[in-house]
Amino acid sequence: MTVRLDSTGRRLMFTEAHTVKRFAATGVDDDQLTRIWDLAKWPPTMFNIQPLRVLFVRTPQGFDRLLPHLNDRNQVQSRSAPVTAVLALDRAYHEFAGRVAPHLPQLAEHLAADDGQRDQLGRFSAGLQIGYFILAVRAAGLHAGPMSGVDHDGVDREFFPGGRLTSLLLVNIGHPGGADAWRERQTRLPGEHVLRWA
Amino acid sequence: MTVRLDSTGRRLMFTEAHTVKRFAATGVDDDQLTRIWDLAKWPPTMFNIQPLRVLFVRTPQGFDRLLPHLNDRNQVQSRSAPVTAVLALDRAYHEFAGRVAPHLPQLAEHLAADDGQRDQLGRFSAGLQIGYFILAVRAAGLHAGPMSGVDHDGVDREFFPGGRLTSLLLVNIGHPGGADAWRERQTRLPGEHVLRWA
Repeated sequence: MTVRLDSTGRRLMFTEAHTVKRFAATGVDDDQLTRIWDLAKWPPTMFNIQPLRVLFVRTPQGFDRLLPHLNDRNQVQSRSAPVTAVLALDRAYHEFAGRVAPHLPQLAEHLAADDGQRDQLGRFSAGLQIGYFILAVRAAGLHAGPMSGVDHDGVDREFFPGGRLTSLLLVNIGHPGGADAWRERQTRLPGEHVLRWA
Repeated sequence: MTVRLDSTGRRLMFTEAHTVKRFAATGVDDDQLTRIWDLAKWPPTMFNIQPLRVLFVRTPQGFDRLLPHLNDRNQVQSRSAPVTAVLALDRAYHEFAGRVAPHLPQLAEHLAADDGQRDQLGRFSAGLQIGYFILAVRAAGLHAGPMSGVDHDGVDREFFPGGRLTSLLLVNIGHPGGADAWRERQTRLPGEHVLRWA
């Protein structure tokens, strides 16, 4: 028997969700944020490597450290959000390989010896996990606002000294704030440009 | 009012879904595959660039072209699946920028002039879209089996001559086949290694 996601779920996760630019004052507590991860952690990564790390910035002190590294428009967005998640790649993710991929006993050694492949595999799987994370925010009943226009080197110097973690994307999290919470949706490429058949 | 994904949806999309290794003989028709994309296309990409392309291989002739580029174990998996999706990056995705990002009139020119940034941005956004795609397969009531162990250069020569598209991941799609459809789930990293707070 086929179980599909019902129409409420499809709207929530895919068809009616928007990238939120302006958030309501409603708070988000740490349990809600932990629940996002308790969903996002499950879908697959290459060799189960799970290289993504998540920093939840949600205190005034945290925002004071974060905001100087955003452009003006993003500062306004991030200031309105109760939480900004800094999604980062752990460049040394292979150190956990024995634990997460015991079926591949040579994986840690192999990745340790090949910086290029380790980086490529890590970035790719972290990208998948960021996709899962954004949908998990929605599944948790919250709204996500990913932002470009960030000085990632500056964010990394502030929050991740030592160079092991490198930030890939910042995502504001909260509840939408009023009528201008999001922009009108932009065009999606028609299927004829995306789908091929063989 | 907060609308969360209900427990059926959470199980379907995140907590109870598995990477399927062995599929049932039940077919999947092209409308079902198109519906996957009609969900996966909506979540966000950087600057709305949408660089992912999808080739659905589902005919005997298509599988004859695909299987030689998989290792033995993956050939068995892919043979059991009614469909294998080849998820690929369009390296020239910026040619659509005027259409998908009219609010950023300089984007196409900027990306055309910077091969490194174009590639990095494309791979990152394609990774997000592959994450959305895998969850959209599940939302459509189907099961996904992403595979490593693929000769991607061989796949690209066969299906994407000219070099504009480059395959990133192959995902088998169908219904699970029997008691050994998936392996026992591997360990997820505990939150203490993943989550940070500021």
